[in-house]
Amino acid sequence: MITSHPGLRVIEGTVTTPRGYRAAGIHCGIKADRPDLALIVADVPASAAGMFTTNKMRSAPVIQNEAKLVSGRAQAMIINSGNANACTGPRGFDDARAMAAAAAAALGIAEGLVLTASTGVIGRPLPIDRITAAVPALVAALGAGGTAAAHAIMTTDAFPKTAAVVVDLGDGRVTIGGIAKGAGMIHPSMATMIAVTTTDAAVEPPLLRQALRAAVNRTFNCISVDGDTSTSDTVIVMANSAAGAAPLVAGDGRYEAFVAGLTDVAGRLAKMIVADGEGTTRVVEVAVRGAASDADARAAANTVMTSLLVKTAFHGAELNWGRISGALGRSPARIDPDRVAIAIGDVWVVRNGVGIPETYPAAQELLTPSEVRVTIDLGLGQGTFTGWTSDLGETYVKINSGYLS
Amino acid sequence: MITSHPGLRVIEGTVTTPRGYRAAGIHCGIKADRPDLALIVADVPASAAGMFTTNKMRSAPVIQNEAKLVSGRAQAMIINSGNANACTGPRGFDDARAMAAAAAAALGIAEGLVLTASTGVIGRPLPIDRITAAVPALVAALGAGGTAAAHAIMTTDAFPKTAAVVVDLGDGRVTIGGIAKGAGMIHPSMATMIAVTTTDAAVEPPLLRQALRAAVNRTFNCISVDGDTSTSDTVIVMANSAAGAAPLVAGDGRYEAFVAGLTDVAGRLAKMIVADGEGTTRVVEVAVRGAASDADARAAANTVMTSLLVKTAFHGAELNWGRISGALGRSPARIDPDRVAIAIGDVWVVRNGVGIPETYPAAQELLTPSEVRVTIDLGLGQGTFTGWTSDLGETYVKINSGYLS
Repeated sequence: MITSHPGLRVIEGTVTTPRGYRAAGIHCGIKADRPDLALIVADVPASAAGMFTTNKMRSAPVIQNEAKLVSGRAQAMIINSGNANACTGPRGFDDARAMAAAAAAALGIAEGLVLTASTGVIGRPLPIDRITAAVPALVAALGAGGTAAAHAIMTTDAFPKTAAVVVDLGDGRVTIGGIAKGAGMIHPSMATMIAVTTTDAAVEPPLLRQALRAAVNRTFNCISVDGDTSTSDTVIVMANSAAGAAPLVAGDGRYEAFVAGLTDVAGRLAKMIVADGEGTTRVVEVAVRGAASDADARAAANTVMTSLLVKTAFHGAELNWGRISGALGRSPARIDPDRVAIAIGDVWVVRNGVGIPETYPAAQELLTPSEVRVTIDLGLGQGTFTGWTSDLGETYVKINSGYLS
Repeated sequence: MITSHPGLRVIEGTVTTPRGYRAAGIHCGIKADRPDLALIVADVPASAAGMFTTNKMRSAPVIQNEAKLVSGRAQAMIINSGNANACTGPRGFDDARAMAAAAAAALGIAEGLVLTASTGVIGRPLPIDRITAAVPALVAALGAGGTAAAHAIMTTDAFPKTAAVVVDLGDGRVTIGGIAKGAGMIHPSMATMIAVTTTDAAVEPPLLRQALRAAVNRTFNCISVDGDTSTSDTVIVMANSAAGAAPLVAGDGRYEAFVAGLTDVAGRLAKMIVADGEGTTRVVEVAVRGAASDADARAAANTVMTSLLVKTAFHGAELNWGRISGALGRSPARIDPDRVAIAIGDVWVVRNGVGIPETYPAAQELLTPSEVRVTIDLGLGQGTFTGWTSDLGETYVKINSGYLS
């Protein structure tokens, strides 16, 4: 990632850091003893946009959110963890509607302004009665509760994920904050990720959609690769104008500063998701350059980033670059084996497809830190892509072979 | 798999079970203390055919074998384990040639009749001097050594893989035998698999190619999915006519019996490779039906068979069918979520995309044996595919994060 822009100042914060938002996270009884229900509310109806999974088994909340966001407006989002409400048939749609209706009634707003999300086990009916019964307590708890909300949306996450930034638009400052969950990722796309971002900037819905797409394509979509997604992946942004700054206009410097800010928040949340991969001990940045096209660069990086042989080698801090070559060879990208070069950090270990043994010791040392950088030059063109993946350790297997129990 | 044909009789055996073949397996010093060099030789030049990896980083032996087999003839194959001679540049080609030349000289046959294969670590130069120095001892050891050869080609394999069958052609009997290696498979295609089959049938090269393609497409290609292969995957068949049976003719019952026999040998070897997946505790058969096309059925099965969340759930014997649904949803196959049905063994746990909780206890019991059967009906058409995958346990990660050390 990560955007650098002179107008950005990174701060600690969450969805309740921008003006005009409240949030809460409580326990409603889906999980045994951990928070499992979150609510984020804007003081007034806000511009809103979302991006959702491309999985064909989309959950009821995803389908309903997409329909609601055609209006470009939302005011609240209620999220439960512990149950994904996916593959639950007609009942799943009824349950998602009931969840939105309960929040709308308690907040005194229209149901169409309430988005929903559910994350956890797939294929089990949502215990909707526990959720609706808890909504009054959830609304009563609303306040500067962004961190509580971040806790309540966790599933296998080891830590809550929050990020915020202040953006200097020149004629005023706006704040962008976010929370996210996601961890179960041998590659990230296989687990649900949910991110909610809020801002007090004034952005009309079409421009907000454009800004979100720009930010997500450089961040969440670089860890969760195209078309390879869970039933529930969801990224939402709300903009409530509460900062009092003039509305953003497409293409100017103020808009660019805003997009840089949104990309920064999304990028830090995305990187936290990679770092929180189940059993992850290191985050690996995979930068591909010299590809025949950007699409080829993304395809080549994706195959490397999702190769289990590559990921287990990184877990063992092994300089097994042959596994990177093998992954490149089976990627859909155009590859000339005799032109491939591979570097660990700044140390080139492969040139023209062949290893350079004298550099191995220096490269080996760069494999042990918790952040590792791999550069792959395909030597064919100008295409580039940078993505992030995690190593794969025994802990992942332990967590995921006993997930239901 | 697995062909049933009235003319087949399964026997214990290897590449030296058919008449007119000798083999040996010895230690040449690539590995510390285990056999690492194998030779299989026909008494006379034989018809021969091969199928190879579609990986773009193909190893030198693969490229050279393909060129040699244009002639449709071969007499010997020398195979080392411990080093894949892949991604080794021009030197790799020299080394593969030297390996073939050393065997040809010691056997007194043309170098063009000697195939080679190498399996093990990628990207390290082959210790060719140790191989060529050991060739005289290897040739001296030739005999009924199919099992020794099967041992010598192992890498992370836990056991040698051999299979044989006697085929009644009506007017005479022929024998088909085979050996294989392959294990490192989170999904099978990520590891090298090598299989060598021999027969004393008389089959002209074009028909032998056709028979091999038919057998491999129903066996090895159902565990190692299209286009998703290692640098070195190799399947070879040699036919030396030593049984004295009349040559096979395309399309008749004798040819069909032969293909059934070759498919049986290949199928049992392929299933052994799945069963020997690193850390595998169970083999899972995934049968997809009702797909819009056979290609769709294969694509849907492939996504399920390679999903780590599915494989870890099978490791834990968890009835987490939502992970199967999630995998189906991101497969490239056409899917209607409301038509999907899923069975464990003969117990349907999902109909119309929704779980049937009353059947879960019965299905749960079918998840604990070492062989598990999953049927997925997409409810869309006539397309079918059956493949085999393994569960994923902690042992896989342990083996693959310390492979070089």
